[in-house]
Amino acid sequence: MIMNKVSIGLIGCGNVGSGVVKLLRKKKNHIRQKFATEFVLRSACDKIIKKKPPRGIGRAHLTTRYQDILNDPQIDVVIELIGGLHPAKEIVLGALKKGKHVVTANKGLIAHCGKALFQEAHRRNRNIYFESSVMAGVPVIKTLTEGIAGNNCNGLYGIINGTCNYILTGMSKKNYSFAEAVAEAQRNGFAETDPTLDINGMDSAYKLAILVYLALGKFVKIKDIHVEGITHISHDDIEYAESLGLAIKLLAIAKKTNNAIEARVHPTLISKEHPLSATNGICNALYIDADPLGDVLLSGEGAGQMAAASGVLSDLINLASRDSQPASRMLANLYKEEASLRMRSMDQISTRFYIRIMATDKPGVLSKISGILGKYGIGINSVTQKAHNRAATVPVVMLTDYAKEGMVRLALAQIHKLPIVKSKPVAIRMENLK
Amino acid sequence: MIMNKVSIGLIGCGNVGSGVVKLLRKKKNHIRQKFATEFVLRSACDKIIKKKPPRGIGRAHLTTRYQDILNDPQIDVVIELIGGLHPAKEIVLGALKKGKHVVTANKGLIAHCGKALFQEAHRRNRNIYFESSVMAGVPVIKTLTEGIAGNNCNGLYGIINGTCNYILTGMSKKNYSFAEAVAEAQRNGFAETDPTLDINGMDSAYKLAILVYLALGKFVKIKDIHVEGITHISHDDIEYAESLGLAIKLLAIAKKTNNAIEARVHPTLISKEHPLSATNGICNALYIDADPLGDVLLSGEGAGQMAAASGVLSDLINLASRDSQPASRMLANLYKEEASLRMRSMDQISTRFYIRIMATDKPGVLSKISGILGKYGIGINSVTQKAHNRAATVPVVMLTDYAKEGMVRLALAQIHKLPIVKSKPVAIRMENLK
Repeated sequence: MIMNKVSIGLIGCGNVGSGVVKLLRKKKNHIRQKFATEFVLRSACDKIIKKKPPRGIGRAHLTTRYQDILNDPQIDVVIELIGGLHPAKEIVLGALKKGKHVVTANKGLIAHCGKALFQEAHRRNRNIYFESSVMAGVPVIKTLTEGIAGNNCNGLYGIINGTCNYILTGMSKKNYSFAEAVAEAQRNGFAETDPTLDINGMDSAYKLAILVYLALGKFVKIKDIHVEGITHISHDDIEYAESLGLAIKLLAIAKKTNNAIEARVHPTLISKEHPLSATNGICNALYIDADPLGDVLLSGEGAGQMAAASGVLSDLINLASRDSQPASRMLANLYKEEASLRMRSMDQISTRFYIRIMATDKPGVLSKISGILGKYGIGINSVTQKAHNRAATVPVVMLTDYAKEGMVRLALAQIHKLPIVKSKPVAIRMENLK
Repeated sequence: MIMNKVSIGLIGCGNVGSGVVKLLRKKKNHIRQKFATEFVLRSACDKIIKKKPPRGIGRAHLTTRYQDILNDPQIDVVIELIGGLHPAKEIVLGALKKGKHVVTANKGLIAHCGKALFQEAHRRNRNIYFESSVMAGVPVIKTLTEGIAGNNCNGLYGIINGTCNYILTGMSKKNYSFAEAVAEAQRNGFAETDPTLDINGMDSAYKLAILVYLALGKFVKIKDIHVEGITHISHDDIEYAESLGLAIKLLAIAKKTNNAIEARVHPTLISKEHPLSATNGICNALYIDADPLGDVLLSGEGAGQMAAASGVLSDLINLASRDSQPASRMLANLYKEEASLRMRSMDQISTRFYIRIMATDKPGVLSKISGILGKYGIGINSVTQKAHNRAATVPVVMLTDYAKEGMVRLALAQIHKLPIVKSKPVAIRMENLK
């Protein structure tokens, strides 16, 4: 058996980086036997690497300058795990220019600069692998680029942020308030000290941008994705939803119809019968609408040190098995967009809505609210006026029929101005998933 | 852009074969643009091809002799879709010997002869792709061989036969008897006229053998897999199970512990809280226990003409993108088993059991039955004696604690001999899935 020897330069030895070091060590024999490949960790770079080298780093050369790794002609593959846009972009482009392959888990980088990076890789006949950028080691990138290559994709939807799902699960199953659920997620290591990027939906938006490109063929700008986080969801909303047989999940959704793409991230009401409503805690789940295969579901833990490290190692193994292949024939022609696609504006999108309005408990409230909705052509499917023990303000909870986003926005702005309405109306979209 | 031209010989133009012809035609432009590849269907072979050529076969050469395709030096890839062991084995070996790559959907062939075929492919430096052999185009083969390559597998379980799942769903959701559910599956094209291979569990066993090899590294003989079908499941069992918060599904299960492998296919009681209990109709779902990633779930339609054809096309595209690579560096070293693994015998396996015994409605029945179970060390977790309006025979339904398979078998044989017991006891294993 001919052993394939691959020299690695690791840039970024934080949480995931130390996981990769650990895994390379632990699985050395397995990889040799199963894949006839030996990975040699030749150099590792991190700002504090000399003070605190990762355990099991062995005889790797340690440096604080990433240029040392890019300039080392012995290194075949650069693993970029520092996160952020700079100098991550310079590292990846620099590695490709020096004829090295790249493995990265950096979703922000791929979402923002993917096109430029793929083009550079194509030009240099090198590869970028990025499985762990979406749902960690759960092979969604592999599935979209290779596994279901015989299909076209019409769209996809799913739960792709474990932190938000953990928080919403806590609110639903343990009756936590939003703040309590966030605190519990932080205690258990499932939310950062500053959880902003997760709970405002941006993390999901980055991942969705990557998925949209791979599945639908267009590089979507982050600003063209409609993003809403979960900070405005109250425990009451979750309870009202449950009484209607519905669950609230933060979904990422993309669809292609008639050469137009919609891409959005927002809390979504779904039927409790749908398997996504049973996707709880840090679990992620993605449905891909493939033609002719139909819906394909991938699910698993989409975050965590070792889950992400396993995705990086899968990338390394896949890369090693084909490093002589031209990049353009590997993950399809990643450097090329489908020219004819345009974005559909959010105003044009129709969904059903759950609307909660805190209003004075007086006769005539419902007629005023429904009058405004009617003026904008929004039909009401059901309405419940929740009785709060003699409170002056009561929630009016409604499910609408399908309505245009733009119309709902105008109607809610007008309802908000009514003297009987005591706070900004809450609107949560509802999807009829198959 | 350099176009990669791949000549195909198709052997077997039945249901899936005509789907492949249709798909190659429909997706021609998509494949050219996205993968820089042009597939040319050069020849097609079938017993009745001249009487009834598939629609859209174009200018392909038509033959009834598969040797014509093997002997054509212009053909790069042979697609084998005739099913069965012979001459499928001769076709695949012959194609490899002639230096051609192979794509097949033939689960029986891979399950029985996989090792010999992989070895021949390795020797000839060619590839065999077989995505559609398990769960049609849902990319489980790709995931196990490449997608989660950075992990070891401890086991897997799931629903991998759509026909049985459709029948059990009909019995559970529509109150059908077994016979009625089979008839409905046949009417809707989800069961063959002779559904034996599906309902006796053998179809699942073939697929499990393939999965076990890819996930756990051992070629398991079909006779070493414990296989039970669904023919002994009655509507009453499904009803009693539901009253206990359980669902009955035909599961394929494999585990590796301490260098021993267990592999089994049988009806299984699972919690109604587990997502598999919501996997209904022809849908398939497979959980892979990966280390360190954790459980990965893949789900989708595991059967049907176009679902299978899409898997064949995915294989072709993946093959075309790397036909210059040595086989051994592609899907891991498929030709090599892990030497140290042995099979665990069924008798050694512990599970919980649901037991239904039809017995005379007399005092003392329960004490006799539980006495025998106790003698074999089998603890009873719960027991219900169902009241059937004054019937002379009543069902005694029990859930046991964990018990060794061999002990349960001995106990039930003895219980069956009791004069008060009116028919063979029904025993269904129960799994505590995560």
